[in-house]
Amino acid sequence: MSIIVQKFGGSSVADKEKLMNVANIISKTYDEGNQVVVVVSAQGKTTDSLVKKAEEITNMPNKREMDVLLSTGEQITISLLAMTLQQMGKKAISFTGWQIPIITDENNGNAKIKYIDDKTIKNKLDEGYIVIVAGFQGIDEECNITTLGRGGSDTTAVALSVALKADKCEIYTDVDGVFTCDPRIVKNVQKIDEITYDDMLELASSGAKVLHNRCVEIAKKYNVEVDVKSSMEEGTGTVVKDGSYLEDMVIRGVAKQDNIARIAIFGVENKLGKTYEIFNMLAKENISVDIITQPSGEHFQKDIFFTTSLNNLKKALEILKANKELIGAKEILHREDLSKVSVIGVGMTNRPGVAAKMFEALYENNINMHMVTTSEVKISVLVNKEDADMAVRAIHEKFFN
Amino acid sequence: MSIIVQKFGGSSVADKEKLMNVANIISKTYDEGNQVVVVVSAQGKTTDSLVKKAEEITNMPNKREMDVLLSTGEQITISLLAMTLQQMGKKAISFTGWQIPIITDENNGNAKIKYIDDKTIKNKLDEGYIVIVAGFQGIDEECNITTLGRGGSDTTAVALSVALKADKCEIYTDVDGVFTCDPRIVKNVQKIDEITYDDMLELASSGAKVLHNRCVEIAKKYNVEVDVKSSMEEGTGTVVKDGSYLEDMVIRGVAKQDNIARIAIFGVENKLGKTYEIFNMLAKENISVDIITQPSGEHFQKDIFFTTSLNNLKKALEILKANKELIGAKEILHREDLSKVSVIGVGMTNRPGVAAKMFEALYENNINMHMVTTSEVKISVLVNKEDADMAVRAIHEKFFN
Repeated sequence: MSIIVQKFGGSSVADKEKLMNVANIISKTYDEGNQVVVVVSAQGKTTDSLVKKAEEITNMPNKREMDVLLSTGEQITISLLAMTLQQMGKKAISFTGWQIPIITDENNGNAKIKYIDDKTIKNKLDEGYIVIVAGFQGIDEECNITTLGRGGSDTTAVALSVALKADKCEIYTDVDGVFTCDPRIVKNVQKIDEITYDDMLELASSGAKVLHNRCVEIAKKYNVEVDVKSSMEEGTGTVVKDGSYLEDMVIRGVAKQDNIARIAIFGVENKLGKTYEIFNMLAKENISVDIITQPSGEHFQKDIFFTTSLNNLKKALEILKANKELIGAKEILHREDLSKVSVIGVGMTNRPGVAAKMFEALYENNINMHMVTTSEVKISVLVNKEDADMAVRAIHEKFFN
Repeated sequence: MSIIVQKFGGSSVADKEKLMNVANIISKTYDEGNQVVVVVSAQGKTTDSLVKKAEEITNMPNKREMDVLLSTGEQITISLLAMTLQQMGKKAISFTGWQIPIITDENNGNAKIKYIDDKTIKNKLDEGYIVIVAGFQGIDEECNITTLGRGGSDTTAVALSVALKADKCEIYTDVDGVFTCDPRIVKNVQKIDEITYDDMLELASSGAKVLHNRCVEIAKKYNVEVDVKSSMEEGTGTVVKDGSYLEDMVIRGVAKQDNIARIAIFGVENKLGKTYEIFNMLAKENISVDIITQPSGEHFQKDIFFTTSLNNLKKALEILKANKELIGAKEILHREDLSKVSVIGVGMTNRPGVAAKMFEALYENNINMHMVTTSEVKISVLVNKEDADMAVRAIHEKFFN
């Protein structure tokens, strides 16, 4: 008998009809002779409305209490889904994060899973139950409620698959798989039937929102095959799994990420350790930076450019401006209306043609690039936000038609 | 240092402003040098809207899953109240039922508290925290979430007072104490400054909704002094405590209970055990009956009249009609538009004047009585629902003016 973990996101469980639809998918899998563990998110806009309640009270909600608040969202869904399955005559039982328990570190709001006890679930599966687990939540070792942060329910599903040694982990979304590009931007996108963990990681971190990086990283680490499918349409989706390509170069997709800010620090003293000093200062305040370019410092001064997400911009500028003298910077400037457009694939650096083709697409459409960065599996360019969709279409057209 | 338990109901915590008001009451108590434990209910109509979600799916929701669903209501309140207190600069921390833990039996939807561990709360009080506990909920010994049923948060507050050996248990409501009558029916009601547990029990079971019977029963058993106060107005409330009155007769109040149904079983064979058989049949199906009258059976047949709450009527009739032959009844009739009006006090049976005064009030207002029942502490009459408010006013007038 196979163990199958199925995860359904917030829009897939938003109301009674959606719950019925999800219950049908689960029942079908169960009736085919599988043991089924289901992970669900909070319904529709529930999390947003809970956040709003907290924001009415304070703009700096205590993180522990925020997790107590937010974790109610998934708890509502598990009970309603269990009732829906029971109404269809199925044996179903729900569990919150602490009931399993799913043990995390104590980093409220962005906790990492440390350990999942499989006994509770295994026992109920063996008694013939469909087991429904609240995604996104756990408890730390002091029994405080924690949440896993963005993409948390996907992470719960993959982590449960590891703990239960599940045969399959199915992530149901509102699209029927992973595409070469966002279908809302490009019309003739192609569905990817199979993708490696590494390519999926690059696609996700470049803004393709189908799977969150953390869940792909766990899947990669423990070699869990993840099947991304549509909850609304039957059919095959995209399988994310280990593997390498026989061909030496495969372009996997084009992705876009909005809300990028770029900070430019001009006239930094060209002294060993200055670059380290700057980024260490930001890291200490938990500010992630993405692309960094530092035109090689042949002179006594250098300029440093880097990008960060828009919501980090204000804090980053504060830190840098407060330490302007310490850094030895002449001027600190920023732009906040930028997007990152990336081509993802393998073996890129060995193929200068890829970058050239990408730049050609941008040039033909009069799109200006602010920064370029390349890696083994990705080439990214920074463009003005208003040009980003056009850039994605132009690049996709070049590679996939 | 005194430990004070304060309980706030759903309407007292319904929105941001109400939470601020409650937080002020709590802070004041804390600043006076007390250790404060707060018990809260779900905000405003939250429980109703959760029930509605379940009812959309099924009209027979599984009780375990219903408790998973409903317990989210109080969990939302505890986090928001903790944030409100923190925003005011106070150290506050929230706990769900399972985090304490509050251990109950496994009777989902109507669980009884078996045991409360005081360590978690005591530790946090000693660290200077205001401790906020979700009312109405607990867990059974298998870690299933349970709820305590109607009046559950009051019960939580009194039970916590027992477990913590609290010096005081304050129940905040939207009225400023217990009254001789419902202020919505009678204008010139009088606030009762002190009332015994027994009188409070009679008032509550006769429809005065200020305190639920279960919480008064626990308070009586463990001799916890309960102070009923208004969350909106400062001032003294009603103290519910042990004691007896020096006077041999005191009328404490007039109460009303709507939605009463009366069932009449005519022509039951006058044989030993027939009455037992009927009520045993109903008890087995969890149908509580209130007033029973059975005019003394001198003949070979007898008639039995009893009341039950309106929501039990359908089931009771089904059971009785299905067993009509077994019971040996000729006819089963019912009325569903009745209310019970009661005078509550002590030493009533020794004072025939009380009943006479009550009947006089009804007679003067042309109100017909369907049944009468008397006990040591209460005289109740069954009247038509449309006459009930007038009956309450007339009786209150007789005794309190």
